[in-house]
Amino acid sequence: MNLHQNQELAELKDKLLAMASRVETAITKGIRALVERDDDLASKVKIEDDEIDELEIEIDDMAVALLAKAPLARDLRFIIVAMKICQNLERAGDEAAGVAKQAIRLNREEQLKPYVDIPRMADMALDMLHRSLDAFVTGNATVAREVLPMDLEVDDLHKQLQRELVSYMLESPSTITRCLALLQLAKRLERIADHATNIAEEVVYLLEGRDIRHGNKGLDT
Amino acid sequence: MNLHQNQELAELKDKLLAMASRVETAITKGIRALVERDDDLASKVKIEDDEIDELEIEIDDMAVALLAKAPLARDLRFIIVAMKICQNLERAGDEAAGVAKQAIRLNREEQLKPYVDIPRMADMALDMLHRSLDAFVTGNATVAREVLPMDLEVDDLHKQLQRELVSYMLESPSTITRCLALLQLAKRLERIADHATNIAEEVVYLLEGRDIRHGNKGLDT
Repeated sequence: MNLHQNQELAELKDKLLAMASRVETAITKGIRALVERDDDLASKVKIEDDEIDELEIEIDDMAVALLAKAPLARDLRFIIVAMKICQNLERAGDEAAGVAKQAIRLNREEQLKPYVDIPRMADMALDMLHRSLDAFVTGNATVAREVLPMDLEVDDLHKQLQRELVSYMLESPSTITRCLALLQLAKRLERIADHATNIAEEVVYLLEGRDIRHGNKGLDT
Repeated sequence: MNLHQNQELAELKDKLLAMASRVETAITKGIRALVERDDDLASKVKIEDDEIDELEIEIDDMAVALLAKAPLARDLRFIIVAMKICQNLERAGDEAAGVAKQAIRLNREEQLKPYVDIPRMADMALDMLHRSLDAFVTGNATVAREVLPMDLEVDDLHKQLQRELVSYMLESPSTITRCLALLQLAKRLERIADHATNIAEEVVYLLEGRDIRHGNKGLDT
């Protein structure tokens, strides 16, 4: 791959980072829309998501064009991983849009209780997303591997929240619709953390050439 | 791309079909486990899912090896689409495993009511999956496009089921945990239909070179 192509790879990386930044903004806005009961903010997430979708198509097109130039093995892997990261970011953007949608639903009713665990889950998912992209950009497999156990923490917090919300519903059925909306919102945050984990796994694969998907996570850490 | 590589493309296609067939079996077993209240069958879905995960890694490796051989533009696109289909199948397999898990949970309690809409949703999702793969194998864009509106039907059925289950919960709170399990199970079927839709969109892109993701579905149909 020549100098020109190297520049194209750098552009691909930059575009992916721009996409990741939009996804982070979308998640942050979705959660702020819930906590601050701000419907206007929630509706802005939709615009963010449209831009994320456009970036996905642009990145995909760039990647296909680069693959057509018969890249070196190392660059080939980089391009494929970039495409996979892109797909995960697009889905994380969809989840952020879903968070905003549930926020609008929840803002219509009286707040069930102060939101503590949900913003915490969101912070953790954002942190994972940020670190996995950082690992990709800096080429740091250690940082990527550090993301993997964080997903278990998010899962634990999610399960705890689920149990708590089910107790609420059983104790006072009048809270059922709100609890269901919160359950759906929390599930979306949990999926964002899953996408961050997928990205981290792809980065490890890129840097170490080892496939650590499907439960082999603990073997080398 | 030479004759040898053509054979490799055919192998890639065959492996993808084998994977799709496992995913279909996993979904069918998961739903049968629920309807027939058969925990043994549900536990077999886990084995199926492990095999699906192995096939994903094999297909990915085959695709990367093929991409490294500087394929012609047309074949390049075929290989990339095969990788994307593979990823969607893997996630559909995960959803099938989730269906089986909820079936085990539901089988522990008295059946809420005869399952009608859930098997119907599953049949529709299976049909979509089958058709989108068929469109890929036969290179038929018309069949692929026919899958897209089916997703709307699944979404409608899903929303109807959600409303019904929420009414149940409100009327008799003792059904809450069962209703929640059914809601989660239905959500997984809805996601399987989404994956089938993604596959159909990829097939249209492969055959027509047009990207119809992100809400442009209705434009040309």
